[in-house]
Amino acid sequence: MDISKLVKFGSLNPKSTIPLYRQITTILSDYIKNNTLPSGCKLPPERELAVLLGVSRTTAINAYRQLEEMGLISTRVGSGTYVAEQPKPQPAVRAVPWSQLFTPTPNTQLSSIIRELIAAAADGDTIPLAAGMPDPAFYPFDDFNRLFALQSSRFKSSDLGHIPTEGYLPLRRTLAGLLTERGIDAAVENTMIVSGSQQGLYLVTKLFLEPGDYVIVESPTYLGAIQVFSAANARLLSLPASKRFALDILEDYLIRYRPKLLYMMPTFKNPSGDVMALEERRELLRLAAKHRLVIVEDDPYGELYYEQQPPPSLKALDTYGGVIALGTFSKILFPGLRTGWVVAPDIVINRFAMEKQYIDLHSSNLSQRMLYDYLSAGLLAGHLTLVREQYKKRRDFFAGALKQYCSPYLSFTMPLGGFYFWGTLSQGMLTRQLLHEAAKTGVSFVPGEAFYADNSGNRELRLCFVTHSEARLLEGVKRLGQALQVMAQNSSPASQEHPAITPII
Amino acid sequence: MDISKLVKFGSLNPKSTIPLYRQITTILSDYIKNNTLPSGCKLPPERELAVLLGVSRTTAINAYRQLEEMGLISTRVGSGTYVAEQPKPQPAVRAVPWSQLFTPTPNTQLSSIIRELIAAAADGDTIPLAAGMPDPAFYPFDDFNRLFALQSSRFKSSDLGHIPTEGYLPLRRTLAGLLTERGIDAAVENTMIVSGSQQGLYLVTKLFLEPGDYVIVESPTYLGAIQVFSAANARLLSLPASKRFALDILEDYLIRYRPKLLYMMPTFKNPSGDVMALEERRELLRLAAKHRLVIVEDDPYGELYYEQQPPPSLKALDTYGGVIALGTFSKILFPGLRTGWVVAPDIVINRFAMEKQYIDLHSSNLSQRMLYDYLSAGLLAGHLTLVREQYKKRRDFFAGALKQYCSPYLSFTMPLGGFYFWGTLSQGMLTRQLLHEAAKTGVSFVPGEAFYADNSGNRELRLCFVTHSEARLLEGVKRLGQALQVMAQNSSPASQEHPAITPII
Repeated sequence: MDISKLVKFGSLNPKSTIPLYRQITTILSDYIKNNTLPSGCKLPPERELAVLLGVSRTTAINAYRQLEEMGLISTRVGSGTYVAEQPKPQPAVRAVPWSQLFTPTPNTQLSSIIRELIAAAADGDTIPLAAGMPDPAFYPFDDFNRLFALQSSRFKSSDLGHIPTEGYLPLRRTLAGLLTERGIDAAVENTMIVSGSQQGLYLVTKLFLEPGDYVIVESPTYLGAIQVFSAANARLLSLPASKRFALDILEDYLIRYRPKLLYMMPTFKNPSGDVMALEERRELLRLAAKHRLVIVEDDPYGELYYEQQPPPSLKALDTYGGVIALGTFSKILFPGLRTGWVVAPDIVINRFAMEKQYIDLHSSNLSQRMLYDYLSAGLLAGHLTLVREQYKKRRDFFAGALKQYCSPYLSFTMPLGGFYFWGTLSQGMLTRQLLHEAAKTGVSFVPGEAFYADNSGNRELRLCFVTHSEARLLEGVKRLGQALQVMAQNSSPASQEHPAITPII
Repeated sequence: MDISKLVKFGSLNPKSTIPLYRQITTILSDYIKNNTLPSGCKLPPERELAVLLGVSRTTAINAYRQLEEMGLISTRVGSGTYVAEQPKPQPAVRAVPWSQLFTPTPNTQLSSIIRELIAAAADGDTIPLAAGMPDPAFYPFDDFNRLFALQSSRFKSSDLGHIPTEGYLPLRRTLAGLLTERGIDAAVENTMIVSGSQQGLYLVTKLFLEPGDYVIVESPTYLGAIQVFSAANARLLSLPASKRFALDILEDYLIRYRPKLLYMMPTFKNPSGDVMALEERRELLRLAAKHRLVIVEDDPYGELYYEQQPPPSLKALDTYGGVIALGTFSKILFPGLRTGWVVAPDIVINRFAMEKQYIDLHSSNLSQRMLYDYLSAGLLAGHLTLVREQYKKRRDFFAGALKQYCSPYLSFTMPLGGFYFWGTLSQGMLTRQLLHEAAKTGVSFVPGEAFYADNSGNRELRLCFVTHSEARLLEGVKRLGQALQVMAQNSSPASQEHPAITPII
């Protein structure tokens, strides 16, 4: 660093009331603070500085001494004078008014509940019955590793470059085949690979929803759907749960609100486990066809049945072409694949791809290639048989434990498939309260309110029964039972169910 | 199928002017058409039908005969009567008015150019100098396969479940270490893994941009950035290219428009290859700090230098905390990883994570885990040395070929790093025209207009020199030269440069 270019002759004023050494100090300290003289930079010896600036050696010495006192330079014996390591700048986050710059925070009631569920699963002491995750013990990672060991499935360069936004073509072909087996008439052009069905849902909002648009959802419904639709500032219309699908209410909504779409999980619904009967599916499709209603059918659990096979999906029964189907491998294989799919008319797929291009160009090739290898090896069917057997055992075990430890406070109906028990607490007991007690006894679940767009469900709760071994499930249910006991003894529920609204003054 | 439940006694009216067999036909054909009697369903023998409905056998026979004529049932000799395979429903896509339901198409000038570039690279005959892709020959897939063969790096269950939205923690730690080596003071909390830097850009728009917001971009700049900002309905302010960074224009923009952010690629800029000098970076940061300007620094090419190492990144020099840095492994390793990163103050990272949760929960664990293994094995530095050497050779070779075959029509300056030559055609020659000629000779490139928010750049073009071997590059340049020759002979450019605007009547 040629310091003479920074501190010029003539920039010092010998006639000033400020002593020369101070003038030098000020100039150099500015250069050090703004990093023009960066830390570690060697400065000229005092004698040389004096000559450069046309000042006395004493002036130069005094200037350096003051800079040293300010902590801006340091002298290493026998080596010279250097710009000192500068103190860290103030935590500079405050300097930019970030929160004023951000777009409005998505208007979701329970904005980060999914992230919290994921985080909770990592907490060692609590038994998490909240998150809907398959048991890692069943992840087919031995199969994945074996496939990798085979030369044939090792990566080729052509697998690792850019691929079309719609997905890795061999995987899309395999997927179209799988779908055909399930009665869905899908050509490759009707399929698209997405980063989990969450991304499929997100793309649906990008494609169809402008702020204020109406979306019909079942009540209760998947909380992730409520969140993503709310974040898009859509207005949610709830179809109340009833013995038969509420066609009359649906038709009323269709006429009065002209909603953009109906979001449905007809098979082993998250959270209630309900299955829509074949005849109800047909009736729904007839009504939908009449009104040209777009139905988004989310089907993550259809292959996980523990009694008879459920009826064909809406997409398989669709004759008017208005059903967009979302699927995923997260629940049947493992979530870390981040690989789901969309089946839709090609005009919809094209627009999905255009939106996805902005989001991430395309999904991970590694996940898609490995999944393709796995499916091509014909390993999925055997895996499904295994997990169906295991999860069915756990379901039966869990039901028994609930009856033993949580009666009479918690009632439920036996799910025929999927991941969840949907429980209802006795009159006067609130799940939010139970959540606090359960945190003390060491078990977690999702309170029912999370699954309602309208704040109802305050006596309901969702319990995932597939993630843990029977021993751990038993311990979880016991802890839940303890929490219920505590609540039953302490509560004066009637007053808490309708808390008075206190004005904020 | 118990047909007696569908066609009830009493639903037939013997007194009607419509013959009984026709009444039966109508009822059954409705049930067949609406799939209540699905194809393949066996119908009762005529005699049984007659008994069931209380009609004569002749009536039953006539009903079946008519249904057979309508193609709705078929009789298999010795087996019985079955509902026939129904004709495929009309291509039902038309039934739902999809395009009326879609949100407005993103308002981008060149909406699908990136997808087209990716597609073009797959065309066997054309030599694609358009897409900015590393040479697959250098993808370190041998290393990836070797890592896989080691037991230690095989998948564990814990790697395949859900992970935090911000990314696989060991990878984030490794990344923070890498960034520190590059002078960026980043704690793990300041980092986030995204699905390619494209997703980083997308998240930036979600976080900061509402329709009508101003964004400053360099001119020319990365076309993907123009697209994603335009899709968010932002207004783009262009900073014209000049010898020195146009600080005065920037300050004018800051005061007049109060833009939400400045998007920059200071190092080996795509497309021009320019590098911003250290002093200019410092000046920019001083001005940015004064105005609390958010700078989004995109740095995909910083490690790919072919002469001396470029100056530290803006993020490394940032003292006011307003720089958000985007990086990616797509250019230095391979695009199929879909793994990039964001470095920003933690308040920004938190909000990024909230938005990303809606989009895909988190990026692929497989990609993140494999990248972590690769980086932990210390393999990146050697790979970078290799590709720097190889790409430098190609750059020099390509420059020589351009001089030999494309002079005097195409001029350029030598890029000091990155992937591209940025060429300018002689006065009166237009790159759009050249694109057509080049399609005939079999070579592709990106026309300059793609990199401008304001339609300028019609004599410029971008050529990627890293993807192919010298032999193929030579052939590509020769073909480009042929196209230039043809254009030079045919064109009467003055009249074409400003085409008259013909009113549309």
